[in-house]
Amino acid sequence: MTKGDENVPLGPDGQPLSKKALKKQAKEQEKAAKKSSKQALENASKQSGDAENDYSEGHYGKLPMLQSSEKTSRQLSRVKELAPPLSGQNVWVRGRLHTSRAKGKQCFFVLRQQQYTVQCLVAVSDKVSKAMVKFCSLVNKESIVDVHGHVQTSPQKIEGCTQQDVELHVEEFFVVSSAEPRLPLQVEDAARPDNEEDTEGLNIRVNQDTRLDNRVLDLRTPANQAIYRLQAGVCSLFRESLASRGFVEIHTPKIISAASEGGANVFEVSYFKGSAYLAQSPQLYKQMAIAADFDKVFTIGAVFRAEDSNTHRHLCEFVGLDLEMAFDYHYHEVVDVIGQMFVDIFKGLRDRFADEIAAVNRQYPAPPFKFLEPSLRLEFPEAVAMLREAGVEIDDEDDLSTPNEKLLGRLVKAKYDTDFYILDKYPLKVRPFYTMPDPHDPKVSNSYDMFMRGEEILSGAQRIHDPEFLTERAKEHGVDISKIKAYIDSFRYGAPPHAGGGIGLERVTMLYLGLDNIRKTSMFPRDPKRLTP
Amino acid sequence: MTKGDENVPLGPDGQPLSKKALKKQAKEQEKAAKKSSKQALENASKQSGDAENDYSEGHYGKLPMLQSSEKTSRQLSRVKELAPPLSGQNVWVRGRLHTSRAKGKQCFFVLRQQQYTVQCLVAVSDKVSKAMVKFCSLVNKESIVDVHGHVQTSPQKIEGCTQQDVELHVEEFFVVSSAEPRLPLQVEDAARPDNEEDTEGLNIRVNQDTRLDNRVLDLRTPANQAIYRLQAGVCSLFRESLASRGFVEIHTPKIISAASEGGANVFEVSYFKGSAYLAQSPQLYKQMAIAADFDKVFTIGAVFRAEDSNTHRHLCEFVGLDLEMAFDYHYHEVVDVIGQMFVDIFKGLRDRFADEIAAVNRQYPAPPFKFLEPSLRLEFPEAVAMLREAGVEIDDEDDLSTPNEKLLGRLVKAKYDTDFYILDKYPLKVRPFYTMPDPHDPKVSNSYDMFMRGEEILSGAQRIHDPEFLTERAKEHGVDISKIKAYIDSFRYGAPPHAGGGIGLERVTMLYLGLDNIRKTSMFPRDPKRLTP
Repeated sequence: MTKGDENVPLGPDGQPLSKKALKKQAKEQEKAAKKSSKQALENASKQSGDAENDYSEGHYGKLPMLQSSEKTSRQLSRVKELAPPLSGQNVWVRGRLHTSRAKGKQCFFVLRQQQYTVQCLVAVSDKVSKAMVKFCSLVNKESIVDVHGHVQTSPQKIEGCTQQDVELHVEEFFVVSSAEPRLPLQVEDAARPDNEEDTEGLNIRVNQDTRLDNRVLDLRTPANQAIYRLQAGVCSLFRESLASRGFVEIHTPKIISAASEGGANVFEVSYFKGSAYLAQSPQLYKQMAIAADFDKVFTIGAVFRAEDSNTHRHLCEFVGLDLEMAFDYHYHEVVDVIGQMFVDIFKGLRDRFADEIAAVNRQYPAPPFKFLEPSLRLEFPEAVAMLREAGVEIDDEDDLSTPNEKLLGRLVKAKYDTDFYILDKYPLKVRPFYTMPDPHDPKVSNSYDMFMRGEEILSGAQRIHDPEFLTERAKEHGVDISKIKAYIDSFRYGAPPHAGGGIGLERVTMLYLGLDNIRKTSMFPRDPKRLTP
Repeated sequence: MTKGDENVPLGPDGQPLSKKALKKQAKEQEKAAKKSSKQALENASKQSGDAENDYSEGHYGKLPMLQSSEKTSRQLSRVKELAPPLSGQNVWVRGRLHTSRAKGKQCFFVLRQQQYTVQCLVAVSDKVSKAMVKFCSLVNKESIVDVHGHVQTSPQKIEGCTQQDVELHVEEFFVVSSAEPRLPLQVEDAARPDNEEDTEGLNIRVNQDTRLDNRVLDLRTPANQAIYRLQAGVCSLFRESLASRGFVEIHTPKIISAASEGGANVFEVSYFKGSAYLAQSPQLYKQMAIAADFDKVFTIGAVFRAEDSNTHRHLCEFVGLDLEMAFDYHYHEVVDVIGQMFVDIFKGLRDRFADEIAAVNRQYPAPPFKFLEPSLRLEFPEAVAMLREAGVEIDDEDDLSTPNEKLLGRLVKAKYDTDFYILDKYPLKVRPFYTMPDPHDPKVSNSYDMFMRGEEILSGAQRIHDPEFLTERAKEHGVDISKIKAYIDSFRYGAPPHAGGGIGLERVTMLYLGLDNIRKTSMFPRDPKRLTP
């Protein structure tokens, strides 16, 4: 299927519909919607006129709610398996009624199963009555139906469906679960490519809030089906890569007694008669696991930030992919592991999720994600020099602003041809108190950020593992020592040197796919203005 | 190593220490503790008398804080790799000083790395000065040290260590990270087997609260190292089993706008200017994912219960392993998948974690976990009959009390020789409103619990996927419809029949290992009385 094909509404024959046909279709849908779905279906049976003459009786209709009444040996086929080798065979398929169009004595419809679609035809014949065709044509879009029919090779490619070589000639048709006649959004509209020109005035867009308010419908688009399957891949590749290097998965508490990073931007929870907070990071617990001899640990879990940031890349709750690792002599041992882990993730996505990437690209076009192996590691002064060369005024110890990060991403891409790189050796003063200073330059730290398409997706560092020095640095930062006593005490019984980092899952998915908003990669996003669904 | 060996404090030669030797050892430790660790080490150098005569200078001491000053080609060996084939070779090892005992011109000590231990000897020689031996003997237990020495085959088994055939003759010894001289608990005490008789009055127990208050130390015991590695295995086997069956991993929000199960026992969160709740279950979101065509989903994440239950099996925050699956005709399709998934987990634990299970059993003895393949599935009336036969008075529609569940577990074990079974077809009236009733008997439901060693570890059901019937059932249960509108609306656009369940990770680990308290299987447990560390 080429890109353009998804944009233009297609007739059941796979050809683009004329403006007239479209208007007619819209009218019919509107008309159907006015009656309640139930009513319409009942009427369909009655209107068939002579019930005795309905020789299809028992071969179509609305099934009672499926309550596990009986077990059956009937096997349902998958839409994605419908192909020429099955030609001539009879199959049962359960899917959603994606689109339908009645035309005289026949009704064409498209059956959808996740990202796969097949064209179906129910036409008056010695097995199919007029009443049955009418019934089929009145079923609401998005209803789940069971159809029985034979697979037939199509003489020409069916452009509007993923199964282009076969269609299903239907002889039985049952509604398993009805959708309401009026949908708050059309899945077809929600699936329309972003880049298409609106030449016919028909290119309806569905805005972000409508999508999120009706997420159950929105998530049915091929792009969304692909995004969340690929996101599951990010998690599984992260675990696979680290487990193969001896990391142990741990689980850290989300309810904590004190704010983990100083107290700002933290959600408060009522905890029995007292109060508590939601963890902004699993860092303390990862570090405790290291001090407790787990050596290399990772954890995947919810992270909470009470920041009133309404941007394309902030969420109040996101999924953190965190890791922490004891090292022998130099924190670059850890940086190298993280760098290689990202290479493992990028390769795995490229090789295992090509279909998903293509499905997302059809709706949201983006250049493929580029990376180097081994990963590119730059030092902070090199970044400053590149930015200065590009005309940016920046001091040696300034942190990078978001626009500067993006510009730097473009400069790095132009020079090194990679969308992923590691920026090492941040100025000490822009990092948290627990960051290990560089041993040779007091203005520099053993810390790093990692970037995808010019946006930060990981922040990490060698942590101070000496309780006295940690206390000293906390005081220099004006941190109230009494509030971080438990943290400091964790290092009093011998702690190995260690480093780690935290990754935002939704950001990785968003930036890998070149999407423009983190709400596209959080199944049920939480931001300062959204708590539902 | 046999069980008994861990109980009695051992000398460096692996023989149990006499009472006198133990007292002496305790005195020495006490003495050392009185001086600050730093001071003692400095004194050790000074007291060596003539510093010029200290021909070991530069081969021992306290290293400066490891700040990643330089990279080195030095390779550290792992304790678990130290074995006869390495005999005669020189190795560097980093580990914790587990125990040490000076005796004249030599000091025996045990080096520990996670669950592995090796005996080391530093003795006055042409390479090792008296000052160096003294220095080594004064280093605090639990400090992290780098030692350099040659591996030597031991003429007799070293019973107190995991590496029984070799010892390390040390020529260099550096402290990487010092532990404080006074530890709030001794790792040796915390590791002592539960079942040992206290014949000598030396069998010190460490109570649960002391353990949890000092979790960084407590987690260093071999049993704890094993418990959390095995727990990571439960998660990875859960995912492996489901992913192989086409399940997709999803992430569901923890902050929700309305209480997911009726409003009781829910933690409230302040959310910007309003308030929100912590999710008691990901169920609504799993079901939305099913309604959104993800077909089979699982999620692992924090689950919150504000129950003031101070029992051996309740936590206020635990890790939920949840799954939900659309089925074709009968919810037993889902029950069978879950049953087989547990078999996959039990087999995987047995085959891949034999060492960990043995390590836990040495401290907490328990009979091995038994299971059947396929899993045993009983129906509720059979359970009632078995209980009645055992003298319990119970009505057909009564829920099972915790004592009855335990008794039933014993009866099932006696009859079927399995520690895991599925109890199907619970009375409708003891299940939540969204549970699908049985199609043939209005008093029965399509729901099930699953049990390990007589305790519930999964609760699940076919859910009602029809919005009208769901509304009707909610009303019958007296649920405020306005509060669950979003839930009901999720099914208005066509939803396949589906079933699922939620599993408590900590319970699975606890019951698989036959442990007596869920706080043993939660790394940082949260209960009504504990919010730290």
